[in-house]
Amino acid sequence: MAISEELFFLDPSFEGTLQKQLQHAVAEGVLSGRFPVGARLPSSRRLAQHLGISRITVTLAYTELVANDYLTARGRSGYFVSETAPRLPEFGDAPPAEDRVDWGRHLVAGHSRDARVARPADWRSYPFPFIYGQTDKRLFDHANWRQCALMALGQRDFSALTEDYYDRDDDRLVEFIARHSLPRRGIRARPEEILVTLGAQNALWIASQVLLGPGRRAVRESPGYPQLRDILGESRADVLTVPVDGRGLIPEAVPAGADVVFATPSHQCPTAATMPMERRRRLLERAAAEDFLVVEDDYEFEMSFLTPPTPALKSIDRDGRVIYVGSFSKSLFPGLRLGYLVGSAPFIREARALRALMLRHPPGHIQRTVAYFLSLGHYDALIRRMSGAFQQRRAVMEEAIAAHGLQVAGRDALGGSSLWMAAPPHVDTEDLALRLRGEGVLIEPGAAFFEPGARPGHFYRLAYSSISRAAIPEGIARIAGAIARF
Amino acid sequence: MAISEELFFLDPSFEGTLQKQLQHAVAEGVLSGRFPVGARLPSSRRLAQHLGISRITVTLAYTELVANDYLTARGRSGYFVSETAPRLPEFGDAPPAEDRVDWGRHLVAGHSRDARVARPADWRSYPFPFIYGQTDKRLFDHANWRQCALMALGQRDFSALTEDYYDRDDDRLVEFIARHSLPRRGIRARPEEILVTLGAQNALWIASQVLLGPGRRAVRESPGYPQLRDILGESRADVLTVPVDGRGLIPEAVPAGADVVFATPSHQCPTAATMPMERRRRLLERAAAEDFLVVEDDYEFEMSFLTPPTPALKSIDRDGRVIYVGSFSKSLFPGLRLGYLVGSAPFIREARALRALMLRHPPGHIQRTVAYFLSLGHYDALIRRMSGAFQQRRAVMEEAIAAHGLQVAGRDALGGSSLWMAAPPHVDTEDLALRLRGEGVLIEPGAAFFEPGARPGHFYRLAYSSISRAAIPEGIARIAGAIARF
Repeated sequence: MAISEELFFLDPSFEGTLQKQLQHAVAEGVLSGRFPVGARLPSSRRLAQHLGISRITVTLAYTELVANDYLTARGRSGYFVSETAPRLPEFGDAPPAEDRVDWGRHLVAGHSRDARVARPADWRSYPFPFIYGQTDKRLFDHANWRQCALMALGQRDFSALTEDYYDRDDDRLVEFIARHSLPRRGIRARPEEILVTLGAQNALWIASQVLLGPGRRAVRESPGYPQLRDILGESRADVLTVPVDGRGLIPEAVPAGADVVFATPSHQCPTAATMPMERRRRLLERAAAEDFLVVEDDYEFEMSFLTPPTPALKSIDRDGRVIYVGSFSKSLFPGLRLGYLVGSAPFIREARALRALMLRHPPGHIQRTVAYFLSLGHYDALIRRMSGAFQQRRAVMEEAIAAHGLQVAGRDALGGSSLWMAAPPHVDTEDLALRLRGEGVLIEPGAAFFEPGARPGHFYRLAYSSISRAAIPEGIARIAGAIARF
Repeated sequence: MAISEELFFLDPSFEGTLQKQLQHAVAEGVLSGRFPVGARLPSSRRLAQHLGISRITVTLAYTELVANDYLTARGRSGYFVSETAPRLPEFGDAPPAEDRVDWGRHLVAGHSRDARVARPADWRSYPFPFIYGQTDKRLFDHANWRQCALMALGQRDFSALTEDYYDRDDDRLVEFIARHSLPRRGIRARPEEILVTLGAQNALWIASQVLLGPGRRAVRESPGYPQLRDILGESRADVLTVPVDGRGLIPEAVPAGADVVFATPSHQCPTAATMPMERRRRLLERAAAEDFLVVEDDYEFEMSFLTPPTPALKSIDRDGRVIYVGSFSKSLFPGLRLGYLVGSAPFIREARALRALMLRHPPGHIQRTVAYFLSLGHYDALIRRMSGAFQQRRAVMEEAIAAHGLQVAGRDALGGSSLWMAAPPHVDTEDLALRLRGEGVLIEPGAAFFEPGARPGHFYRLAYSSISRAAIPEGIARIAGAIARF
């Protein structure tokens, strides 16, 4: 049997070279059984002509397929599907299974949450994306990231790439966090006081599972980070809230009997407030007097372009009461999924054991790539570039917001990447967000940050981390227009 | 101030080019404050001479450091530490915190486990590593892995690399698992019935958290996978065991009242037994009659080089009672941390929600790299190469074991990568393993697979996935010698 060149076509959406696409097509044909053993492939001349590509591309693809044992070359007769080509085992065509399980009985925990107004997956195609926490293609140092990843893919890092670390981490990354990242937050920690996590979400999850359970009392900020509310909801602890004002968490308002307080002192989520030093001291004094711990989520600390950064709460902790959560997601990219926990050795030991049970360790390749990116200075350069751009965007934001009379409800005195906004009370910002989508503008409704059942509907968040400076004035104008029409 | 070239030295253990090493050294000096703002760097000529490297290397490093704003170039006067160079903020020298927390009170869950006899970190330097589940550098297709990773680092995959997927997965990887991996196990599944996990460990953890809790009864095989025992120990369910014999789990021996049975039908851990079809049918009949679920850990299914693979238990499940756990760790490498769960949509929905709370999603870059590796046919080629090598090694193992009169206690009729061995009853294999280390031989003691308190000490596992064929006879001879001297 000869395989006709007519069976081949090029897929313009294929991401890769023509040669790879061709290899892919042949491999698929063989695996699916469409190209049986012994069948002859079209000659490179005919296939090249049919597809309108160069003959050498076809020849290179065929050669690679021979190396992978999909094809064999028989001198001048051409290329044939190999006798020993990979194939799918045949199990017969099983009818699709019906589901006869009573899942209501078998699913013990209900982890699913209310749907929230999510950003659209194609947000990059919107001209005015006031979207929070995503990577700006114009700022990210893709070339050097790629180079660091390549280094980490090399022969010398074969073990770091492939090996099962069990409960350990990449030594170099931990060393860099200890010697480079933490000193910038005024924190000194030894390697046994650091645990690498799958992002800040995973760090908060681990901390809550290690510290909370029935009979324990957790306290979180309100308004606050919705994912933390979900995480604490899984802990089986009693969960209370503490209010925040324009200067962050109010230490005197922490409910009595707390075991663990979850706080965002540097940059409150979502109000962006920075907690002043005397509040931090009072919080730690109460923690010592009442024997509670504080889990500090220090996200976005690098974006301090208006005033120098304040040190982390952890840096003034003399008792080992503060557990620190750091992340590379905002500064590098959220799809990286890499963060860390810093705390006393007994806590980190338990957190490490739990992480090992849950997932063993974050992939070694990713840890090593970040270690290179940090150690070669690319990270610091990136932070400087981002800070510079955010500073300019922030100024344009403030100006446009003032010009249109929009109301800022909270802002980060240090910098940050977002403003917390209040629309007039009659405006439902979930509705507003959907209307603005039609005009190419993406904003984040604020209701999700409040308690279910007591949610003011008129707050929203505007981030400037993914929108160009040039697009800001028009974007703000459209928001103002939509609010006026409400 | 001029920085002396004497402050520079080359570190032979640095993994990267000389240029990168030089950039690294300068960046470290600036960040640590040793090289103050305005200080002049040594001329490229002097530094090149001092280090014995080419002058162009120094110039390229300096140029890159200018681009990253560590240095400025002042015409003919040379390079200086930039006024705006990245620097560490100064918070004063805080005294190290003392720990005043009563951690006994604050750590609610005890996740730490007994230390086990672990493989040494430098196992690759042992001449006879009968080590299980690690990557063989001679077999792994490092070049094509690197190429797939590079593709996934390209501009076209920028979103796959950087974006926060929240609870979603890489569409292409899921499609390939559905269209390529699962059909080989006789399983048909739609994308909403598949969840990508951080390896099989994470899949088992998620399944146990979603399906178990107080008042539920879990059943696991004994002997069995020690990590599963630890995972189930965290579930708060009642955990019982079911014995296995030379044909795997005994369906009639599953204790009454089970809610979830965890099984390894294709390749029992650690005995390597394959469960015959009639036992599988009886297990599913009991599951239907008594309304329990089965979590099938189908690790190592690809290594079926002696007989064709048997389909997965999941493939004969008509009720949706089987939850399937797959993994790329054994076939690619364990440091990858990528596996998947397959089950009915209501289960996967809950599992997805829990995964999102715990860690959001496995890093996008890794998912995309595996998708390329699969779709370009490299994965199948790798499996074939590994199967061929393992088949040869297995034959040499069996021959050497027979020649030395060692006793095989369990073997995989399909192939696999290990043999389950019994030493004479007086031999403590933990002790044996330590003695053999001194002779360059690594074996895995078997006690960890049994129940604490009832652990026969004379079993051990010999894997041939990381030892060369040539080294096997001498390795087996040394094991026989050490057992004889016991």
